[in-house]
Amino acid sequence: MPVRACVFDAYGTLFDVHSVVPLELREFSQVWRQKQVEYTWRRALMRRYVDFWSVTEEALRAAARQLGVHVEAERLMQAYLSPKAFEEVSGALEALKPRPLAILSNGSPKMLEGAVRFNKLEGRFAHVLSVDAMKTYKPAPEVYAMGPEALGIPAQETLFVSSNAWEAAGAKAFGYQVCWCNRTGEAGDGLFLDPGGGFQPDHVATRLDEIAKLAG
Amino acid sequence: MPVRACVFDAYGTLFDVHSVVPLELREFSQVWRQKQVEYTWRRALMRRYVDFWSVTEEALRAAARQLGVHVEAERLMQAYLSPKAFEEVSGALEALKPRPLAILSNGSPKMLEGAVRFNKLEGRFAHVLSVDAMKTYKPAPEVYAMGPEALGIPAQETLFVSSNAWEAAGAKAFGYQVCWCNRTGEAGDGLFLDPGGGFQPDHVATRLDEIAKLAG
Repeated sequence: MPVRACVFDAYGTLFDVHSVVPLELREFSQVWRQKQVEYTWRRALMRRYVDFWSVTEEALRAAARQLGVHVEAERLMQAYLSPKAFEEVSGALEALKPRPLAILSNGSPKMLEGAVRFNKLEGRFAHVLSVDAMKTYKPAPEVYAMGPEALGIPAQETLFVSSNAWEAAGAKAFGYQVCWCNRTGEAGDGLFLDPGGGFQPDHVATRLDEIAKLAG
Repeated sequence: MPVRACVFDAYGTLFDVHSVVPLELREFSQVWRQKQVEYTWRRALMRRYVDFWSVTEEALRAAARQLGVHVEAERLMQAYLSPKAFEEVSGALEALKPRPLAILSNGSPKMLEGAVRFNKLEGRFAHVLSVDAMKTYKPAPEVYAMGPEALGIPAQETLFVSSNAWEAAGAKAFGYQVCWCNRTGEAGDGLFLDPGGGFQPDHVATRLDEIAKLAG
């Protein structure tokens, strides 16, 4: 199948939010991120959506309490308004031209606008899509449906790129071609082993600048 | 509000599945359980339900691979067909008479039947309810709705008992009176702090034999 468009996850994939967390808070940073993702899943299942800004704050407070550390909450939250893009992002997007590109993210519209502007990526994406329009979270299929809907291109001809293994499984289950950008050499996700065989990503890369070659 | 009925979570609340995992596999046991719960959330969100037996096997394989340990998969899985009830269970149920009691669990009907029979608890529960009837997982509200539906008693007059903090939040959000049985002295769940205030359990106990007093 040709790749006629690409859809990117934002946090962890395009933007490195944890680069701004001081090294001595590495454990905190991991627990924070883990709770942030967990709360999106649980709130989506409970049908008690609040936006990603609220979830991120909630996870920050819970992580600090669990670990008994004091953190500068406000400063850390700002990281989500101005996260640094990974170094290869601009070149990787350039190499995918002239395909239409989109962001599809758990982030709230305000958070995504901030991240795109901070990294001078305005105009590089045909669409910046937030789950906020659906009031639920990844990996719900109605979220993944926003990509083909906005782009007018079927999921089967679109490459979904994420550095989250759990999302690679979710996007694959929905029907995208999927590239899992495994930046840190993780082992892979348990759902990749689904006996139905439906959740294994088509490609694994370690950096985004490997994608243009995969897309053909 | 009076408590006219009680609904119990099964694994971790009534049944101690990890008592049978050898001590040297404690880390494995924790990762296994963590992945098991994670996969139920993700599969429910993806609308790719498979039953709890399959999820439990999938999580076992993924945990063993991640930790690089060899485990006797078949023997460990059997623990879910014959898990030991916590020592106070029988007395705690007796003390709640004559209220109708139910189990509401992620477990498949076969797994729940095995656990109830192994512990000679047949006849103690008016209903043994499995999410399998709804083909989704906790904390989806349609699962929690099975309790009032089967018992014919509103959630507001029913005490939901779970040792999982995330489930205490989910059952509370649905509308039950909730007792979180915090067996291990955990810190509590981030969603308990929801600014809407809706997810905090009504009671915290450390053992099930404290419940009859709470139920009044």
